[in-house]
Amino acid sequence: MLSEEVIRELKEIVGDEYVVTDPADLYVYGFDASIHHRDADVVVRPHSTEEVSRIVKLANRRKIPIMPRGAGTALAGQAVPVDGGIVIDLQEMNKVLDIRVEDLYVIVQPGVVYAELNKILKPYGFFFPPTPGSASVCTIGGMVAVNASGMRALKYGATRDYVMALEVVLPTGEVVRMGTRTIKNSSGYQLEKLFVGSEGTLGVITEVTLRLQPLPPERAVTIAAFRTLKEAGQGVSNIIADGYLPSALEIMDDVCIDAVNKHKNAGLPQCAGILIVEVEGHKEVVEEDLKRVARILKESGAFQVEYTRDPEEMARIWSARSAVLPALSSYGETFVSVSLADDMSVPISKVADAVVAYREIAKKYGFVIGIYGHAGDGNLHTKFLLDPKSEEHWKMAEKAVGEIYDVTLKLGGTVSGEHGIAITKAPYMKKERASVLPLMKKIKEVIDPNNIMNPRKMAYWENGIIQYLRYPVGRK
Amino acid sequence: MLSEEVIRELKEIVGDEYVVTDPADLYVYGFDASIHHRDADVVVRPHSTEEVSRIVKLANRRKIPIMPRGAGTALAGQAVPVDGGIVIDLQEMNKVLDIRVEDLYVIVQPGVVYAELNKILKPYGFFFPPTPGSASVCTIGGMVAVNASGMRALKYGATRDYVMALEVVLPTGEVVRMGTRTIKNSSGYQLEKLFVGSEGTLGVITEVTLRLQPLPPERAVTIAAFRTLKEAGQGVSNIIADGYLPSALEIMDDVCIDAVNKHKNAGLPQCAGILIVEVEGHKEVVEEDLKRVARILKESGAFQVEYTRDPEEMARIWSARSAVLPALSSYGETFVSVSLADDMSVPISKVADAVVAYREIAKKYGFVIGIYGHAGDGNLHTKFLLDPKSEEHWKMAEKAVGEIYDVTLKLGGTVSGEHGIAITKAPYMKKERASVLPLMKKIKEVIDPNNIMNPRKMAYWENGIIQYLRYPVGRK
Repeated sequence: MLSEEVIRELKEIVGDEYVVTDPADLYVYGFDASIHHRDADVVVRPHSTEEVSRIVKLANRRKIPIMPRGAGTALAGQAVPVDGGIVIDLQEMNKVLDIRVEDLYVIVQPGVVYAELNKILKPYGFFFPPTPGSASVCTIGGMVAVNASGMRALKYGATRDYVMALEVVLPTGEVVRMGTRTIKNSSGYQLEKLFVGSEGTLGVITEVTLRLQPLPPERAVTIAAFRTLKEAGQGVSNIIADGYLPSALEIMDDVCIDAVNKHKNAGLPQCAGILIVEVEGHKEVVEEDLKRVARILKESGAFQVEYTRDPEEMARIWSARSAVLPALSSYGETFVSVSLADDMSVPISKVADAVVAYREIAKKYGFVIGIYGHAGDGNLHTKFLLDPKSEEHWKMAEKAVGEIYDVTLKLGGTVSGEHGIAITKAPYMKKERASVLPLMKKIKEVIDPNNIMNPRKMAYWENGIIQYLRYPVGRK
Repeated sequence: MLSEEVIRELKEIVGDEYVVTDPADLYVYGFDASIHHRDADVVVRPHSTEEVSRIVKLANRRKIPIMPRGAGTALAGQAVPVDGGIVIDLQEMNKVLDIRVEDLYVIVQPGVVYAELNKILKPYGFFFPPTPGSASVCTIGGMVAVNASGMRALKYGATRDYVMALEVVLPTGEVVRMGTRTIKNSSGYQLEKLFVGSEGTLGVITEVTLRLQPLPPERAVTIAAFRTLKEAGQGVSNIIADGYLPSALEIMDDVCIDAVNKHKNAGLPQCAGILIVEVEGHKEVVEEDLKRVARILKESGAFQVEYTRDPEEMARIWSARSAVLPALSSYGETFVSVSLADDMSVPISKVADAVVAYREIAKKYGFVIGIYGHAGDGNLHTKFLLDPKSEEHWKMAEKAVGEIYDVTLKLGGTVSGEHGIAITKAPYMKKERASVLPLMKKIKEVIDPNNIMNPRKMAYWENGIIQYLRYPVGRK
């Protein structure tokens, strides 16, 4: 709990109506989209960099933890204030400050919503490509904080590839500008890239300059149905090895297809696995590429390959793909889908091995899992269906998750492709990043000596020993 | 000078024949492609990460400066050992370790030459795009160290956008692995990006995993001639604003055209400025894009627009473009071209303003300058023609350079797009990066507390005050 004096100081900085202290609100602010929870002590909703700086100075002086928060869609616990303190809700800072398509950039405040930004950019013929699953609600600041991406990363890259410049309030309250508004720079350390994916542990992002891409003139979507998940996985690497990088290349397994068909009457072909392939470009290119993709998919074993260029039909397919997560949630009667081993990424050619291995591990523990994701860039999501009230289920799930991460690392992969580490994946990062954790610690300590910025996320040290929060933190 | 004991220890680590102590060799190793020079004290040529680690441990124990060196093509003094010490020549570590086109990556040692790598990748149908001017000799390790790029950055990005993973020997001698071999990751701080462009000040890069791109099926080149440099600059931003990103968009002014025509009999249209535009893709797309580009160029004021799809003719054009630097060197009889304000980058729409302003500044001081560069990404090179023996020339040049940087920053630009800071540009970086230098210093100090890694480059501190080396360092 914070003292009355702190609350009063915060009210002086942002104004009474932008300091949240109602217990019901603080309960809600204690969640993100992960399995963790901890009530916020206080929430402030600043309107300017200057206000953020004053809040951070106050917190640093009094050594109060700070949790910068966007829309709260983080999947690994980034936005859960595990040590309490001040949650800085950045959603009031939601202005698009400058649109410069002729310079290929846009400047935004951190609270701008991803889909809103692309809606604004559309008439100019440009877009910010990453397309996360939470596109319609997530904020740009949050995307920068976790290096978010989504189904367009194979062709277009992740958020890190689009951050040209950042304004950041450091843990001292000092405001610094990183990067440039030029397409490239070699002038000093690329700090703007270091801060991407730092999960609020190094500072508060208050302004983002994003590189833009021109919108493609046309798009089309192919759906290919396979008799085995392994063949579908093989189809993915065959497309890449042929030198073709689709603008989206998604995989869904039988569980996901069934869930979506039931939930949304989506009419996807019921089979072991489907690939959804988006091609784009000039009209003639789309035509040629559709043929090329269909040939490769058939050679990979697809028993049915269909495509559409109808915008409504394409929207229907993408909405079916987006429905995987809600559909899985209501798939079992007592079971809910849980984000545990939910964001593995492997080298592209290992997608087939990975999906087969994940399925076997789940089977061994008697779990139903849904496997889907951005197969084109090797990023696979699995959702466990379990009874969240069963301690035994949680214990078994923890074992299964450990094995899934082990096989992912054995295949040359990573425990997080796009969701980040925070709490849920912290214990597993040690295996992947053992050699580099001491260096991360040094950088964290030198930038944030009082450890006020989103403490105990990713990894933390006690008595010189690395520690992790156990999951699920606080959730009842 | 280093003690006999140090030399003996180095010989024990890498073998007698890989320790260079001959004064003539040490003199040569004291140069890079910049205006600076300082004899090396000793050069070692290791063959493995383990040898590098042992060298660094020795240097750290004895607090001897280390200068990691690739091919020595750095343009701002990165590879000049200003404080002497040990130059680590990484050219013996020149193996391509793994080619995984199906996973879109290649693993190389730092001494692999850029053009050699692309020659090896070509039969697979893939390439590593940045294409620096020194492509035929520069090493991958050096490219990572300065975040090198070149004429393909607009469409394809710079080296930082291709570094998936690094193996680095830290200043303690510890070997760490950063990044992943997956297309994207959100697992911990993106240290692999922080080390790109760190100019040898944070560690020695011993292995690089690079993302690959498929080669385009076809390419074509358009040359447009303009009556004013401003119109040429306007042509650049008109192409981008139209939503078209060419794979190369180069500018050359009248001085550069004249120099190249005389030097190589290149036959380029003699005029105030030309744009060279490369388009690529499917055959039909190339045809359509050539028309689109020609239309925009004519609307921008080009009085002549010609294109070619003949590979030999295209090679001839690119070799004329590459000849700018040597051609300018022999352009005047007593004057040589000097790299001073040679790597400014501005927002794309400011290219026209920048070239006009640079020309005016040069005129004011009575200098002839050649302006050329990667206009499509806003990166402009200027070469001063001056008498290097004239103190007055150096003094005037320093003034002119200061003004060029001032106008660059005023236009929203940076003092380095692709060559880096090192010595030549260090004094000017303070204006650009004032707010972020203390953070750079903290990171440098915590990673390299004994300050052995390429000391006094970019910026350094004495008695708490920021200092820079004066140029030209040591050159007589």
